[in-house]
Amino acid sequence: MLFRQLFDATSSTYTYLIADLASRKALLIDPVAEQADRDLTLVQELGLTLTHVFDTHVHADHVTASGLLRERTGAKVVGGAAGAPCADLHVNHGDVVRVGALELQVLATPGHTDDSVSYFMGDRIFTGDALLIRGNGRTDFQNGSATTLYDSITRVLFALPDETLVYPTHDYKGLTVTTIGEEKRFNKRIAGKSREQFIDIMDHLGLPKPKQIDVAVPANRACGLVRPDAHAMQ
Amino acid sequence: MLFRQLFDATSSTYTYLIADLASRKALLIDPVAEQADRDLTLVQELGLTLTHVFDTHVHADHVTASGLLRERTGAKVVGGAAGAPCADLHVNHGDVVRVGALELQVLATPGHTDDSVSYFMGDRIFTGDALLIRGNGRTDFQNGSATTLYDSITRVLFALPDETLVYPTHDYKGLTVTTIGEEKRFNKRIAGKSREQFIDIMDHLGLPKPKQIDVAVPANRACGLVRPDAHAMQ
Repeated sequence: MLFRQLFDATSSTYTYLIADLASRKALLIDPVAEQADRDLTLVQELGLTLTHVFDTHVHADHVTASGLLRERTGAKVVGGAAGAPCADLHVNHGDVVRVGALELQVLATPGHTDDSVSYFMGDRIFTGDALLIRGNGRTDFQNGSATTLYDSITRVLFALPDETLVYPTHDYKGLTVTTIGEEKRFNKRIAGKSREQFIDIMDHLGLPKPKQIDVAVPANRACGLVRPDAHAMQ
Repeated sequence: MLFRQLFDATSSTYTYLIADLASRKALLIDPVAEQADRDLTLVQELGLTLTHVFDTHVHADHVTASGLLRERTGAKVVGGAAGAPCADLHVNHGDVVRVGALELQVLATPGHTDDSVSYFMGDRIFTGDALLIRGNGRTDFQNGSATTLYDSITRVLFALPDETLVYPTHDYKGLTVTTIGEEKRFNKRIAGKSREQFIDIMDHLGLPKPKQIDVAVPANRACGLVRPDAHAMQ
């Protein structure tokens, strides 16, 4: 398996390029519109064929490259059943998506948004904004719910083996990966916290509205391409 | 083996935390002064003992945390023989430094600076600024030499197996890792270029003087602690 973590410094977003080396089929998780050229160059240099683009949720802080990448490569866009209507494949908890010999199992992990899913690959999971490194995504917009997120993290994600690698969609301190075991012990918002304590923390974060939300959410519901002016983004 | 790539967004520097899981002994490669607290917190959370801090060279674009980390943990500072006088261990081409069961082999790769070394660990190499992803460090200060760097890259680094993972100290586009084989084919400055072409490219980069060089180089020759005012940096 080929595995590359990629970073967009403007939005502090991690994108993941994963490929099955036998078939050369590749997928991207949470690509960023402004980095589409970088990502496609890398796919091409590595001799890969991009067949799938996965979004973990409808992002509010950056615009997905999924639509651009679909236009340029024919890749299928995959998202949660409650997510962007533009996706080719809407997935539910327990579904498995195959890319060559790779298998991505879908785990519903709502709470940051109601459409949030994580993608599990055996030794690692891509958690979107549901579980971050020592943190988690906010729950105050896009039908977010601290109660729901508490259950997603403690019942779904924390049920995975402790050694499972956790690759999130963001980090703001330069950390790149964590494990389920580490987050059980050291996550600042949820380790050792009751549901009520977690909800209280999430209710009092006092965060400003995301700068890009009014643009990003409608754009991302259209896979990053806001018709009829799609070419303005390219 | 535990392996964590860490990023300092201000200077676009990658730091590497590597540990032998049996002995829990750990090392850092190219830590950044401003991230010392982050890195020590991670070492502590993971239950590791920091025994060595490696610098690949005397940096001009950020201040090393090696001195701070030595003060706080007793770790030994390792650097190239022509590098910072403050290092506890000055290493030469072919030397092997052991950290628990881990072995780091020193490869002299001068040219970006005259003290630059790379650290090889079997399936991966930490190249400092000698070889970057699709690029390389500049050669116009600190006794840099394009001729020397051409030899370091083509004769030393490109002699490694193509599948060797290359972890550099910087990237400015959000790429995190490459391989020797990729750089042989796609490095913009050296792939398919003659020595003369490479020297010509390096001679005409027209880059501005690094902002931090007048502070960083003397500081880094003192492992980041400029006496007698060392505490001003902490």
